[in-house]
Amino acid sequence: MTKQERATRTRQALIRSAAAVFEQHGYAQARLALISSGAGVSTGALHFHFENKAAVAEAVMAEASQGLRDMSAAIRRRTDTALQALVDTSHALVERLRGDPVSRAGFRLSCDGGRAAAPDLRMEWHHRVRELLEEAAAAGTLADDITREDAAAATVAVTAGFEVLGRHDAEWLSPYRLTGFWQLLLPRLATPETLVRVDPSGTATVPPARGPALAGRVVGEADLPAGATAVAAEAT
Amino acid sequence: MTKQERATRTRQALIRSAAAVFEQHGYAQARLALISSGAGVSTGALHFHFENKAAVAEAVMAEASQGLRDMSAAIRRRTDTALQALVDTSHALVERLRGDPVSRAGFRLSCDGGRAAAPDLRMEWHHRVRELLEEAAAAGTLADDITREDAAAATVAVTAGFEVLGRHDAEWLSPYRLTGFWQLLLPRLATPETLVRVDPSGTATVPPARGPALAGRVVGEADLPAGATAVAAEAT
Repeated sequence: MTKQERATRTRQALIRSAAAVFEQHGYAQARLALISSGAGVSTGALHFHFENKAAVAEAVMAEASQGLRDMSAAIRRRTDTALQALVDTSHALVERLRGDPVSRAGFRLSCDGGRAAAPDLRMEWHHRVRELLEEAAAAGTLADDITREDAAAATVAVTAGFEVLGRHDAEWLSPYRLTGFWQLLLPRLATPETLVRVDPSGTATVPPARGPALAGRVVGEADLPAGATAVAAEAT
Repeated sequence: MTKQERATRTRQALIRSAAAVFEQHGYAQARLALISSGAGVSTGALHFHFENKAAVAEAVMAEASQGLRDMSAAIRRRTDTALQALVDTSHALVERLRGDPVSRAGFRLSCDGGRAAAPDLRMEWHHRVRELLEEAAAAGTLADDITREDAAAATVAVTAGFEVLGRHDAEWLSPYRLTGFWQLLLPRLATPETLVRVDPSGTATVPPARGPALAGRVVGEADLPAGATAVAAEAT
């Protein structure tokens, strides 16, 4: 392993450890010594990578943001309709909030703190939801009598709600909760012809680990959408 | 003013001041000296009413919980159908989150902290949503093909989402956002005969300040549902 590879691994370990510490103690109470020891390195090594606690938090949020974008792009590539891509991406987001501490801590930090330099994960998600609904409208798959902005806001609010409710009761992050929401909403959103082709529980398959968006990234369980692990296990 | 009245007023002033301090600094960073000075009393006076910071936070949550229950009961008394009462109560809740620091801080503390003794405001709200949907189903006003539990979960998640998104951008707590959600959802929830009788923007009128639930409480602006102040102003 080169020095560069070791440094990258240490940085990733620090980000993962920080996510766990922020989640357990909150940002204000999180101690840098706990973060470095959780990553198995000294506080000196931490300061080689990050100037202070705010910089660590920003790295956690940036990592969560990058993960969300990669996942969203990979899902769009493998999905026929924009509406199904919206459903699938929302399921993959909730799955990440359940299984990936970095995504969970990233969203929480992005929500609770007043860090101007950091990405606003909810705003990025809102932006993506809007894009997919615009694409669905352009393809003529959206019902005429709905307001796209209302549909985007409801989707973003529901997922933000699942996230915050899921902090205390993980059942809110179960796939069936989100499926129930789409079962309610899709008959209002989609034209009748489209509705029969969209699966409210998502069409989770293992995204191919290729393409520039995934280059240099390790696809772990947390990168897969809901159910993908089970599908992968059955396929082997 | 009797000693008892003065004590009650001081306690209320401390709760309001604490809500503002918790909101601005977060629970972990909130200082008792700031809470007492915000209420215009000494820290000694604060300790006469509350043992410690956790007790102050619990009082804020209890006050928010009581307010939610009183409001919900008042709205049900003055509303014809359970479905309209659900819409109206959700609008009144969002209005409180926008205009009443005690409700806002109460929900936030109830969400972020791990205080076992405190009321869980989101769980109470979920319980109330379930009750109203059960009542609507018993009255035959709910569509046959929807799952009540999904409808309750979506409603609770959307309002929790508005709350958390509204912390950084108050527009999420605007009445039109919630109206947009009900415009999407109501055609799925209600029977066609009921749908024409339910107003997704809520039927805000000033609730009468009577009945045991409101006894001894001052009905201020924060106790009124969305639009009630404007209605009251027009009526005079």
